[in-house]
Amino acid sequence: MQSQFDTICAISTPPGIGGIAVIRISGPQSFRVLDDIYSGDVVKQAHSTLSYGYIQDQGEDIDEVLVSKFQAPRSFTGEDVVEISCHGSSYVQRAILSTLQAHGCRMAAHGEFTQRAFLNKKMDLSQAEAVGDLIASESKAAHRLALNQMKGGFKEEIGSMRNRLIEFASLMELELDFSEEDVEFANRDQLKTLLSELDNRCDRLVKSFRLGNVIKEGIPVTILGAPNSGKSTLLNSLLQEERAIVSDIAGTTRDAIEARYRAGGFLFRFIDTAGIRETEDVIEAQGVDIAFKKASEARIILFMVDASDSNADSLEEEIRLIEEKKAEDADIIILLNKIDLTENTYPQETLVNYPIIRISALQGAGLDELESRLVDSVEEGFTENLLLTNQRHYEAFVKVRECLSRIGKGLDDGLPTDLITGDMRMALFHLGEITGEITTDDLLGSIFSKFCIGK
Amino acid sequence: MQSQFDTICAISTPPGIGGIAVIRISGPQSFRVLDDIYSGDVVKQAHSTLSYGYIQDQGEDIDEVLVSKFQAPRSFTGEDVVEISCHGSSYVQRAILSTLQAHGCRMAAHGEFTQRAFLNKKMDLSQAEAVGDLIASESKAAHRLALNQMKGGFKEEIGSMRNRLIEFASLMELELDFSEEDVEFANRDQLKTLLSELDNRCDRLVKSFRLGNVIKEGIPVTILGAPNSGKSTLLNSLLQEERAIVSDIAGTTRDAIEARYRAGGFLFRFIDTAGIRETEDVIEAQGVDIAFKKASEARIILFMVDASDSNADSLEEEIRLIEEKKAEDADIIILLNKIDLTENTYPQETLVNYPIIRISALQGAGLDELESRLVDSVEEGFTENLLLTNQRHYEAFVKVRECLSRIGKGLDDGLPTDLITGDMRMALFHLGEITGEITTDDLLGSIFSKFCIGK
Repeated sequence: MQSQFDTICAISTPPGIGGIAVIRISGPQSFRVLDDIYSGDVVKQAHSTLSYGYIQDQGEDIDEVLVSKFQAPRSFTGEDVVEISCHGSSYVQRAILSTLQAHGCRMAAHGEFTQRAFLNKKMDLSQAEAVGDLIASESKAAHRLALNQMKGGFKEEIGSMRNRLIEFASLMELELDFSEEDVEFANRDQLKTLLSELDNRCDRLVKSFRLGNVIKEGIPVTILGAPNSGKSTLLNSLLQEERAIVSDIAGTTRDAIEARYRAGGFLFRFIDTAGIRETEDVIEAQGVDIAFKKASEARIILFMVDASDSNADSLEEEIRLIEEKKAEDADIIILLNKIDLTENTYPQETLVNYPIIRISALQGAGLDELESRLVDSVEEGFTENLLLTNQRHYEAFVKVRECLSRIGKGLDDGLPTDLITGDMRMALFHLGEITGEITTDDLLGSIFSKFCIGK
Repeated sequence: MQSQFDTICAISTPPGIGGIAVIRISGPQSFRVLDDIYSGDVVKQAHSTLSYGYIQDQGEDIDEVLVSKFQAPRSFTGEDVVEISCHGSSYVQRAILSTLQAHGCRMAAHGEFTQRAFLNKKMDLSQAEAVGDLIASESKAAHRLALNQMKGGFKEEIGSMRNRLIEFASLMELELDFSEEDVEFANRDQLKTLLSELDNRCDRLVKSFRLGNVIKEGIPVTILGAPNSGKSTLLNSLLQEERAIVSDIAGTTRDAIEARYRAGGFLFRFIDTAGIRETEDVIEAQGVDIAFKKASEARIILFMVDASDSNADSLEEEIRLIEEKKAEDADIIILLNKIDLTENTYPQETLVNYPIIRISALQGAGLDELESRLVDSVEEGFTENLLLTNQRHYEAFVKVRECLSRIGKGLDDGLPTDLITGDMRMALFHLGEITGEITTDDLLGSIFSKFCIGK
C-alpha cells in the first residue's frame, strides 16, 4: 500500500496517569512498525479485531497490551491504523512512544489524525472541525450541535445548495459559449426562485451563529444591579453544587469568566459586574462602563433589584440605559431579591414590560424559577439542530449571502451573463470553503492546530 | 451466565479531556446493558473484536464510539467485559457513565476491575498488586520490577516453595496419624536441606526489599555539605532538563521531595539539606540533626566539599559522624566542587577511602561522571528481576523466614513432629498470604483502595 504520508503516532487519551492509555498509530508503515515491536502477529491479525501481547524493545518487554487493528481505508484516518491499549503509567506511555519513534514513526502534530481523515476524504472539513468541537464540548447542547455537524449536517445542506447552484451555473456558462446567438438555457425565473430559497437558508444560518456560538462557548449571562443588591450571593447560591462538577475538569476555563453553570443541557457563563449605581455621574464612572460593556455582550441580563431598598428611584432610568446598550436579541430578566426581608412590590408596577422573578439569593427561594427561565430563554431559539457555531463557517456564509444578493441584483438590472456567472463562481467557492473542497495549507494548519495531539 | 457480582463501569483512561477516552464495563450484565444503549449488535459481536456505532439514550445519540467485546472468562476480569472508546470530552464521558448507571451498572470502586481479576482467579494477589505498581511506575527499573511481578514472578517462586514444603508437611502429618508406631515418612536430612535452601531464598528476598523499595519509590540521595559549598547549584544543574520532564506529569509527587531525577532507568529523589557546619556545637544544632536524619534515610550520600575553601579542617570529623549515622548499605560519594576556582586537592589525601568526583556544579563539569556513579551504585545490587518492592510481601517473607528457622531449630532439638508441623503450616500460611490463597476482605480493601478507579 502506498501513501503520500509518513506514519505518525501519539497518545490519544488525556494526559496523565490512569488505568489504561491508548496510543494511536496511522500511516502506511503502521503494521510494519508493530510487527517489529509486538509479540503478536499484527500482519495476520484481521481487520477490526483485538490481539493480546507484549510491546518489546531490544528483547525487553515494555508492556502487556491490547492491539486493535484497522485496515485502510476502513479506519478513522482512512489509513492503516493500530491502537495500542497499554497500562496508563507515565513511564509506559513515554517508553512506547520512544520505541515507536525509534522504529520510524513520527510524533503526530495537533489534530493530525483528523486532518488525515479529511485529506483521505473520510469526512469533509466541517465534519473534521466538529470532531474538535465535540471533544471540547462541555454541555449537552454544545455536544448535540457538534455531533450533528460531525455526522454531516452541513455537508448535506451545503451539498444540496451547491448542486443546485452548479446546475444553473453550468447552464449559464453554456450560454457564454453561445454568446453570439443570444440564447437563454437557464430559466431566469427559476433562478430567481432558487436564489431566494438559498438566500433564506443562508440568512437563517447566518442568524443562527449568534446562538450557536454562545451554545458552544457558554451563554453569557451578565448580572447587573446596585452594590449589595445580592449579586455575589446569587452566584454562590447557584453554584453551590455545580462548582464541584466544574472544577473537576482541569484546564477548561479559557478566560476571565467568573463562574460556569450548567442547566437544562446548556452551559451558562455568569459574569458578575460592579454595581451600576456607585456614582451620581452614571455615564462617566469607569466601573459602570465595564458593567454596560458586559451587558452589551450578554445573551441574558439579570437585573438585580433589592426589594428591601426603598431608595430605588433611578430604576427606570437604569433599565433605559441597559436597553440602549444591550444586544438586540438579549433578554432582560428582573430579579427582585431579598423578598424574605420585605413585602415591597413596587418594581412590578414600574417594570411591567419585563419578566420579574422574586427571589431570595440568600435562602435559595426562586432559584428554580430563575433556572427554568434561563433555560427557556435559550431553548426558544434552539429549535434546529443545524446552527452555525464556527466563526469560519459564519464568515463564509456571510460571503455566500453577499454573492447571492449580487446575483439577484444583477438579474434585476439585466447585467450580462458573464458578470452573473462570476458571482455564482464566488458563491460556489465560499460554499466549498466550508466543506473543504476549496482549501489551503494555511487554513488547515490554523484549523487543526487547535486540536489536541492524538486526535 | 451467572456470577456472584453486579456489573460495574468506570472511565479507565486518565481524567481530563483528550482525543479519546475509554469506559470499561465488567460483569454478567455487560452485554445486556450495551444492547440497551448501543446501535450496534454487541450480543452477536464476536469475542475480541471491535464494532462501530452510537451510544444512545432515549432515542438520542450520545456519541459515536468503538466497542470492544471480551467474553468471560477470556477477559481481564474473567467476566463479560465491554470497552467503549468514545470522544474524550468531559460531557461525553459523564453522559455515557450516567447512561450506563441508568441501565443498571454501578460505578466501580478503586481497583475493582483488578480485584475481580484476582477473585475470578485470572491472577494471584501479588500479580494484582503489580498492576497498581505498574501504573504508578515512573522509571524503567520500577516498571521492570512491576512487570516481572505482574507476569507471575512471585507466583512461580512461591508456588515452588509451597509445593516442596507441602510435600514434606503432608508426609509429616501422615506420621502423626501413625504416631503410636514411631515411623518417619519424611526424611529429616532432606528436610534440612530443603529448609536451608528455602531459608536462603527468603533471606535473599527479604534483603532485596531495601533496594526493591527504593527502586519503586525513588532512590533517596541526600546532599550534605557546608553552606555555600554549592548544593543547590548542583541540583539546578542536574535538573536543568529533567525538571520539565518531571513536571509534565501532574500529581506524581507524593511527599516533600526536593527534586526527582531520572538516570540510567532509575528514579532518584534528591534531598537537599541545610549545611552541616553552621554551628561550632555540631551535635546540638537542629538543622544539623535534620541533615543527619536525611543522611540516615539515604541510599546514597553526596558529601559536598568546597575545594576553594582552605578552612576545612573538620572534614574528617564530619565524615566520621556521617558514617555513624548512615544506613549500613548507603554509599558515600565525595564531591569536590568548584574545581574551576582552585587547584586545591587536599581532600584526596585525607579521604582516600571514598570515591571522589571533581566537579564544577556551576559549569557542569564532572556531572556525567556523577550520574554514572549514581547509576552504578544502584545497578551493582540490581542483578535480579525478582526484588521485593512491597511492604506486605516483605513482612510475610520475614515471617516465613522465622517459621523456617523455628522448624530448623525444632529438628535440631528433636522436638515432636506435631510442633514442627505447626510451624510448617504457619510458613505455608504466610506464603499463601502473598499470593492471596489466604486472604481477608480487609486486606483486599486496603490493597485495592490504593488503585485508580477504572483499573
